[in-house]
Amino acid sequence: MSTHTRRHLLTLPIAIAATTALRPGLGGAQTSALPSWNEGPSRRAILDFVARTTNPGSPDFVSPDARIAVFDNDGTLWVEQPDYAQAAFVFDRIRGMAPEHPEWRHQQPFAAVLSGDTRTSAAIDESGIVTLMAATHAGMTTDAFAHIVMDWIATAKHPRFGRPYTALTYQPMLELLGYLRAHGFRIWIVSGGGIEFIRPWSERVYGIPPEQVIGSSIKTRFEFADGKPVLMRLPEIDFINDGPGKPVGINRFIGRQPIFAAGNSDGDLEMLHWTTRAPGPGFGLLIHHTDGAREYPYDRQSEVGRLDKALAAAPHAGWTVVDMRADWRQVFSFQ
Amino acid sequence: MSTHTRRHLLTLPIAIAATTALRPGLGGAQTSALPSWNEGPSRRAILDFVARTTNPGSPDFVSPDARIAVFDNDGTLWVEQPDYAQAAFVFDRIRGMAPEHPEWRHQQPFAAVLSGDTRTSAAIDESGIVTLMAATHAGMTTDAFAHIVMDWIATAKHPRFGRPYTALTYQPMLELLGYLRAHGFRIWIVSGGGIEFIRPWSERVYGIPPEQVIGSSIKTRFEFADGKPVLMRLPEIDFINDGPGKPVGINRFIGRQPIFAAGNSDGDLEMLHWTTRAPGPGFGLLIHHTDGAREYPYDRQSEVGRLDKALAAAPHAGWTVVDMRADWRQVFSFQ
Repeated sequence: MSTHTRRHLLTLPIAIAATTALRPGLGGAQTSALPSWNEGPSRRAILDFVARTTNPGSPDFVSPDARIAVFDNDGTLWVEQPDYAQAAFVFDRIRGMAPEHPEWRHQQPFAAVLSGDTRTSAAIDESGIVTLMAATHAGMTTDAFAHIVMDWIATAKHPRFGRPYTALTYQPMLELLGYLRAHGFRIWIVSGGGIEFIRPWSERVYGIPPEQVIGSSIKTRFEFADGKPVLMRLPEIDFINDGPGKPVGINRFIGRQPIFAAGNSDGDLEMLHWTTRAPGPGFGLLIHHTDGAREYPYDRQSEVGRLDKALAAAPHAGWTVVDMRADWRQVFSFQ
Repeated sequence: MSTHTRRHLLTLPIAIAATTALRPGLGGAQTSALPSWNEGPSRRAILDFVARTTNPGSPDFVSPDARIAVFDNDGTLWVEQPDYAQAAFVFDRIRGMAPEHPEWRHQQPFAAVLSGDTRTSAAIDESGIVTLMAATHAGMTTDAFAHIVMDWIATAKHPRFGRPYTALTYQPMLELLGYLRAHGFRIWIVSGGGIEFIRPWSERVYGIPPEQVIGSSIKTRFEFADGKPVLMRLPEIDFINDGPGKPVGINRFIGRQPIFAAGNSDGDLEMLHWTTRAPGPGFGLLIHHTDGAREYPYDRQSEVGRLDKALAAAPHAGWTVVDMRADWRQVFSFQ
């Protein structure tokens, strides 16, 4: 799985940052926890919830096996503007595969992507998305697809920041993952993105192993290829893990309700309700992208990661809304 | 979740047996490992594989995170004759719900079940099974269904042994679970049975938590009931985790290939190939039900848990075939 390439290109600074962030949480002083979070209500609410649920004397104590936290990925753990990383992957794949598909020059939505007329996934309708997904995500084994993803993520660069996408994870969120882990939480990614797009790098980048990644999927079929058992990826949607699909996915994969959920868009609304309105303590975290200087400012009007209904629901539901500009001392680890 | 009832009725003897079995594995002498397994090629093959894959000096050493073991449930971990426990559950539910459904007296397959003409699931065709599943497994929340399962499993008795189904787990297999765990393996159940039928009791009986249970499923839908978020169970098949579906389910839930697989029927054939023909070491275990005195003798002709193609494939594939009569000193913990 080209471990060496991966290690070289991407992980060292992030791994070190995450380790450093984690150390203070391990029984260290509370003041050194979450160092990239400014003092304020968001940081306080997190520290308070973790203390309440992990202190054995607390009425809200939760046993370690039930300390389940779920995190959206795009816009919650890493950048999602100007377009989802997976959309950039699809566009790059279409361009890369085009020489073998001369017919694409006369077929939509391929022709528009290849000509540069279509530059973002928001400009493509649902049937077009399905066509592009089928062309780029199906027709190969699961193993082959994982290699394609790893090759892409090792080389692709973000259009504004000029860095690999895996370097564009949010430093305060990496610290939060480490802090929760140090307090006995287990963390699942619950993404609207493709499960097999995230799994090849989630452990290296977030410390989240493949079996703790939940996402959208296409169908696969078991077969023998040259006498070897393989799973072929089929051009057929299996499951959309977004919006009301997130609690469905959580129940399917985990089989119990989380006590901590973090998201940043209306696609996380049902997951937040599912987590915080279950019996017992529950924490909802919404990342509000308010920082145009260090990242992107967007919410109700955005085509990508729209945050509207969930933002309106937050005060009633008691969710903590992170004001990225005010709450985060640092956004990316390189800044 | 009526924890007290569950604990009282079922678990103590099993939990004690499993703990006792596990202790010797924790660095103890190899001779005391797997005490219910007779000396012989099956036991030797298991001990050898675990030694090879967990000894850091071994060329076959496998890092702990990749020590993934998958176990079929019916006929591999607990009794499946004269009919699957879940089929007994369905029949009991139909009888229990009948007073509210007078129309069932004139509708098949309900009428045949209620009259006693149909006594096993093997006598019902596929569309009949779907009808019975819809009536008994759908139309309630996931939470309500878990309670129904727990109430049933706490009280239902096996027709021959007169004991709860959870007391009819195989003592040598409980020891094997403990032995693998003591050597850093993580264990998933990979069952053709319903995922939500197994999860409510798998942790108590096998030490396998809900998030490590993979099974067949029906669809669920997120909704609000009296202002509370729930998942409603729908009368629609989502996924059949059997035969070629098992590698699909394993890939979906775990995202990497196991190195140890145990099964007992043709429904496990593809899972065994998927596990043992991947690169690196892989162990396949097939339980052959040869013991008519202590359990049930069956293989190629059985309607339940047919073992035919997988038995034929075993010698070529190098799978270890357990001869239950010869290899197991004890079958159930009460014997």
